[in-house]
Amino acid sequence: MENYRKKSPSRSESGRSKIAVKEQKTVKKCAVRIIPLGGLNEIGKNITLYECGNDIVIVDCGLAFPDSEMLGVDLVIPDFTYIERNADKIRGVVLTHGHEDHIGSLAYLLKKVNTPVYGTRLTLGLVQSKLEEHGVTAKLSVVKPKQRISLGCMEVEFINVNHSIPDSVALAIHTPTGVLIHTGDFKVDYTPINGDPIDLARFGELGSKGVLALLSESTNAERSGYTPTEHLVGESFEKLFAKAEDRRIIIATFSSNIHRVQQIINCAVKYKRKVAIFGRSMINVVKTATELGYLNVPDGVIIDIDMMDRFTAEEIVLITTGSQGEPMSALTRMAMNDHKKVNINCNDLIIISATPIPGNEKYVTKVVNELMKSGAEVIYEKMYDVHVSGHANQEELKLMLALTKPKFFIPIHGEFKHLMRHAKIAQEMGVDPNNALVAQIGNVIEINGDTMRVVSQAPAGRVLVDGLGVGDVGSIVLRDRKHLAQDGLIIVVIAIEKASHSLVSGPDLISRGFVYVRESEELMDEARHILADALKNCMPDEFREWSVLKMKMKDVLSDYIFTKTKRTPMILPIIMEI
Amino acid sequence: MENYRKKSPSRSESGRSKIAVKEQKTVKKCAVRIIPLGGLNEIGKNITLYECGNDIVIVDCGLAFPDSEMLGVDLVIPDFTYIERNADKIRGVVLTHGHEDHIGSLAYLLKKVNTPVYGTRLTLGLVQSKLEEHGVTAKLSVVKPKQRISLGCMEVEFINVNHSIPDSVALAIHTPTGVLIHTGDFKVDYTPINGDPIDLARFGELGSKGVLALLSESTNAERSGYTPTEHLVGESFEKLFAKAEDRRIIIATFSSNIHRVQQIINCAVKYKRKVAIFGRSMINVVKTATELGYLNVPDGVIIDIDMMDRFTAEEIVLITTGSQGEPMSALTRMAMNDHKKVNINCNDLIIISATPIPGNEKYVTKVVNELMKSGAEVIYEKMYDVHVSGHANQEELKLMLALTKPKFFIPIHGEFKHLMRHAKIAQEMGVDPNNALVAQIGNVIEINGDTMRVVSQAPAGRVLVDGLGVGDVGSIVLRDRKHLAQDGLIIVVIAIEKASHSLVSGPDLISRGFVYVRESEELMDEARHILADALKNCMPDEFREWSVLKMKMKDVLSDYIFTKTKRTPMILPIIMEI
Repeated sequence: MENYRKKSPSRSESGRSKIAVKEQKTVKKCAVRIIPLGGLNEIGKNITLYECGNDIVIVDCGLAFPDSEMLGVDLVIPDFTYIERNADKIRGVVLTHGHEDHIGSLAYLLKKVNTPVYGTRLTLGLVQSKLEEHGVTAKLSVVKPKQRISLGCMEVEFINVNHSIPDSVALAIHTPTGVLIHTGDFKVDYTPINGDPIDLARFGELGSKGVLALLSESTNAERSGYTPTEHLVGESFEKLFAKAEDRRIIIATFSSNIHRVQQIINCAVKYKRKVAIFGRSMINVVKTATELGYLNVPDGVIIDIDMMDRFTAEEIVLITTGSQGEPMSALTRMAMNDHKKVNINCNDLIIISATPIPGNEKYVTKVVNELMKSGAEVIYEKMYDVHVSGHANQEELKLMLALTKPKFFIPIHGEFKHLMRHAKIAQEMGVDPNNALVAQIGNVIEINGDTMRVVSQAPAGRVLVDGLGVGDVGSIVLRDRKHLAQDGLIIVVIAIEKASHSLVSGPDLISRGFVYVRESEELMDEARHILADALKNCMPDEFREWSVLKMKMKDVLSDYIFTKTKRTPMILPIIMEI
Repeated sequence: MENYRKKSPSRSESGRSKIAVKEQKTVKKCAVRIIPLGGLNEIGKNITLYECGNDIVIVDCGLAFPDSEMLGVDLVIPDFTYIERNADKIRGVVLTHGHEDHIGSLAYLLKKVNTPVYGTRLTLGLVQSKLEEHGVTAKLSVVKPKQRISLGCMEVEFINVNHSIPDSVALAIHTPTGVLIHTGDFKVDYTPINGDPIDLARFGELGSKGVLALLSESTNAERSGYTPTEHLVGESFEKLFAKAEDRRIIIATFSSNIHRVQQIINCAVKYKRKVAIFGRSMINVVKTATELGYLNVPDGVIIDIDMMDRFTAEEIVLITTGSQGEPMSALTRMAMNDHKKVNINCNDLIIISATPIPGNEKYVTKVVNELMKSGAEVIYEKMYDVHVSGHANQEELKLMLALTKPKFFIPIHGEFKHLMRHAKIAQEMGVDPNNALVAQIGNVIEINGDTMRVVSQAPAGRVLVDGLGVGDVGSIVLRDRKHLAQDGLIIVVIAIEKASHSLVSGPDLISRGFVYVRESEELMDEARHILADALKNCMPDEFREWSVLKMKMKDVLSDYIFTKTKRTPMILPIIMEI
């Protein structure tokens, strides 16, 4: 594996001999191109294009959540420019599973490009309700594991895998150049809650026949060993239901983790408790999963929230969203004594069946503290094995490499450190270091039978969604928001008479987010006087050059404010012409 | 231990019999009061008052760092109201060690109350330079472990403990009511790098004679077992220096961790490398610690940054700040290719000798990713045991309880979940549940010989420091900053003629942090038209009632903007009178 920053097309170009160039011409016809538009060097917004001749297949179309720098941004979607430019080549979108980071930006894509969508039944069930929210329609085709569909010159085969949502698949993309395997998210669970274990045999069969390239997920590449089976969590739940005795049980988990919800329902049935569901996304997913038969709920087990009063604490389990401490979630509102239907008390046993996603640790801790203050017992983090990951740990990643024996390897779905670690694992497994590529989004990676190289760069990046606006919040807007967030702003208004170029009103000062004005009247008064003096000393000419005048007001005011407070609020001079 | 929310003075009052009231009168003379003004249900700003008769001793005076909600805030200090009100009773401030969360708000306190300060030599060395920065002077008295000082009716005894900074002490506060032990931060290290192991014998002696109350730190109350010795890190460094071979070594750690710095210097000497120091706080601490003899640096080992060029990579170790990924730190700037003196490359072995403090995980990850992109090898998190905690784990907390055998127990220094866990440990160790108190800041906890109860509430909370302003950023300012950060603002300006109450100019719209204006001209134009129409329809009377007029502009504009964008920017109507 070559060094990341050295990995540029020019270097690869210069490294080739003349013979290699000649050879390339012959094989170029059947070269396949891989263009990751998201999911590399970042967590989320997974999307990868496979291009062969005049055909492009899009694999997944996910979103990412904004980081703390992206103030006010709701979500982040990929840059679709390359897809729009090549709209005539797009043969379809193929989905690996129904998580937001794999399907969440599909509605935004379909508003720009009309193309059929393929996925398993549950995945498309979840997609359907998202598209309805956006008022988007598309041709959705349900596929099953082992099925193959033709998309232009490529055939896409679906292979069953295990993950933290049912109906997850990996893809074998049969191209004229060779077979590419795209794992999507996966783990190895020999005893899954729902459906079959990962189809290791098929990966092996493909490996025996020859796999050109493996693109494998890297989320847990830093974690040693195997990810435990989901059943482990069920065993923990059993113990905790017994331990709960006459207390109410409240369990928070990811709404999409239908296996987890199933195990809670199983325990509820065994311990003769009724289940009440909280949180919009939890209610939606349970509804969809039940309708589609992915959740097996005996009649009468799930009750309406308003029926809870008819049962005692020991007869009830609450399943809720909020396992990440999300501020508006049901669990957080319960913790903050702000939930209409649920008051937490010392007769509650609360289980947070999830680990905090990096960045959410403090939110989860806050919720845990608040729940405990109400006297509840709270089970969280690594206590009692109440959570297992949905992603392959190192030994599972090695198993995937061992079965598929790829010639070329591209780690996907992870930050740089995850991709690097995964590439290192591949090397340790015998992949030629020159054939393992830690790529970047937008890289156009061309593979012919013999070589893999980055041949060009497609537009790629982050498009910010804020409310209904897609892409209208850019770096300038974010810079202003950050500035406003740090120190607030002071507005200076003056009115100038057009004819005489003279000051007729102001300067008036208005501030927001700067200081508590009542306690800082003196400061603001003095600032106004200093500004008024500065304006008095202006020549009439200066009143004609507004940009100069504005700059002058800005400088005078910011100097004064900084000296007095060591702060740098945004200063906004406004001139009205009368 | 009673339930937290039930723990109120009124309940304790009502629970007492008449006889108990009578008895209380007799013992009241020698009751001691404990008033934690910070450090409970929070991380940082540790400060506890011990009050007996007319005397108050202040233990520690720390700061906290702002959480993500406190936009633009630099640091958080305790509310000193109770201290100011009782200024005549204050006999002194006693410091346990030199970390920011124990000494960081001392300068702010000394600006309000003039009182002597007691601490060990290194602690006062660090205090001295902080006070100089603030232009504050105070009487600083150096004390040593085993020493006792009289402060009013109390005697404070200093007991040597181990921690991640040298010269840390616990306190035994001898009061007429009995002996109180305040641990400060501690761990048990039988083989410390510098100084003696924790004086367990003295804790045992005090326990044998009878300890009235133990106030013990709770940072690691959730962690089982023992915290390893600091020497473990030294052993890791040895291995990594050997592994580095001809590469440059860069180690990031907390500047105050002088033991860690000493071990790096020891390795440097052994492996014949020179040491260059990066980061303002690292340079300051190394200077102070060397001058005071806490750091043993052979001549010629530390070199000036500008001398680095004279040595090859294999002859150099860099010690730097930035182990928490702080945006402005030396390591972060190196990672972002933004450091004047250091370019990271594939010939670097970088060790992050720290674990991320909760909330900093994402910053550290970002730095790791960027360093790796430059080709460096990066050792971080749990790799190679490059960090050990400075705080007591559960078995050490039990040891402290077993040695001191306190009648009353108050867990300090921790979030609610830590305090609860520590209280539970105390109960398991035999402390009467009624004698273990999970308190809140501001609680006035009175202990006579027989009972401990919360008798009243002192003012306590968070005072925000922003630039030179102390306390002038309150909830309204923060709410405005948050609003501005989320959606930006739109300013509407109109000018009205005084005499005729008629509109003479405007409405003009100016926005910041809302949308990228060039791409949203249409939106803003239409908004202006709608506003202009609304103003045209205003009765002349309405132009007299400015508050009504402003509300009208606000409503019209925010309705339009929300419909079009689903955003709610702050809307600021400004009326100029001509």
